[in-house]
Amino acid sequence: MTPKTVTIIGLENFPLVKAGDDLAKMIVEAAVRNNVEIEDKDIIVVSQKIVSKAEGRVVKFEEINPSEKAKELAEKVQRDPKLVELVLKETDSIVKASPEILIVKDKRGLICINAGVDKSNVPRNAYSLLPENPDESARKIKKEIEKLTGKKVAVVIVDTFSRPFRRGQVEFAIGVAGIKPFKDYRGQRDLYGNLLKVKNVAIVDEIACAAELVMGQAKEAIPVAIIKNLDRAETSEEASIKELSISHQEDLFRETL
Amino acid sequence: MTPKTVTIIGLENFPLVKAGDDLAKMIVEAAVRNNVEIEDKDIIVVSQKIVSKAEGRVVKFEEINPSEKAKELAEKVQRDPKLVELVLKETDSIVKASPEILIVKDKRGLICINAGVDKSNVPRNAYSLLPENPDESARKIKKEIEKLTGKKVAVVIVDTFSRPFRRGQVEFAIGVAGIKPFKDYRGQRDLYGNLLKVKNVAIVDEIACAAELVMGQAKEAIPVAIIKNLDRAETSEEASIKELSISHQEDLFRETL
Repeated sequence: MTPKTVTIIGLENFPLVKAGDDLAKMIVEAAVRNNVEIEDKDIIVVSQKIVSKAEGRVVKFEEINPSEKAKELAEKVQRDPKLVELVLKETDSIVKASPEILIVKDKRGLICINAGVDKSNVPRNAYSLLPENPDESARKIKKEIEKLTGKKVAVVIVDTFSRPFRRGQVEFAIGVAGIKPFKDYRGQRDLYGNLLKVKNVAIVDEIACAAELVMGQAKEAIPVAIIKNLDRAETSEEASIKELSISHQEDLFRETL
Repeated sequence: MTPKTVTIIGLENFPLVKAGDDLAKMIVEAAVRNNVEIEDKDIIVVSQKIVSKAEGRVVKFEEINPSEKAKELAEKVQRDPKLVELVLKETDSIVKASPEILIVKDKRGLICINAGVDKSNVPRNAYSLLPENPDESARKIKKEIEKLTGKKVAVVIVDTFSRPFRRGQVEFAIGVAGIKPFKDYRGQRDLYGNLLKVKNVAIVDEIACAAELVMGQAKEAIPVAIIKNLDRAETSEEASIKELSISHQEDLFRETL
């Protein structure tokens, strides 16, 4: 018997990315160097950080002039006013501002600390912002990879998130192209014929987590992973990460924290 | 160049599990049937449901006599009084009880809907409860597999969770043996020499998600996955899932929902 096997391959020795770089080309070339063949139905998982860098979404400290509003909020949350200036520009609404933490709903609909602005894995004395439109970034990378390889792939852009109730961070999808965000089991039957009423798995978040197992967070320089043989994932040309967003009213966890 | 590759193997055609079954033996036999060799450092991911079944943590509807308290709460949350009776027995404190949902902190410290009591993939007219002590269950399975194979493995028991802020469910670890729950990057330096101050990845939750990619939720009958070549995971004989629990006071997301 041949078991069901999914493979997660990290592309090693990926070059440093700078503004204007052609990520799709770099991914295809890195795959060649790693002796990895890009095939139909591969899922290419890309770290947010290199997408932001390629798109020029890195801002040097010296270019940031905090507004009065940013300075006031920075005082309240005890953070660098320049960081807060960037966060405010990326923010739709502030969810929590305390001396310990600044959590916002960003303009993409993501609930995240500092609107995803941070300075890990970017040149010193600079902050990186999330891609302006991660779905669009994913679609662009997908299209270019398909042009270069002739294969149909999916692309998932991922970033690291803290979450309520559990210690530590995990990886979430923030942009998708060519893959349905969910694997929906509702209406199917289980082993004993029971109808599944609730199960709607956020498969792109699971893909993000699986990819982090090879990517890492420090100087591994593995910002891209390729997932093979994930038959369960369903293709979709219209998919958007917005399907994962849930309004406060719909969120059954409201009032639990 | 040989790239960094992690493999996730689902053991297919796993037999139905019943109370008293020797799970470790069943896993080793299923691996043989699937032509999968269990090796040192393999991570064996096991669905909560088969652990609960093997441990007799399945209760038939006819055996449940709801208390007055359970009946009252059932009215409030519009759920079956028998379900609520079981939930209350598993509960440390109620986090939210509304006509839409019952969320509790269970006696293991997990924040979850219905204390993890459900009826998917158990015989009809019965509910399953989470294992009494999932760390202990994991340790027992690990020890027995090691005895049968002579190999050093880790075991992670997983279940499906809804989470705040994002639609859909993902898999979380609820019991661990032989593996550190975290991969801690704090104090390391990134690609540009920046010190990483926050990154402490909940690697066992990422492992749970990765395993779900092969396991599924319906009648796939793949309740066990084996993860190979995950060098980044660190072994620990004292590990406990309790390290993932975070108190309300420590949880920086408090007051965000």
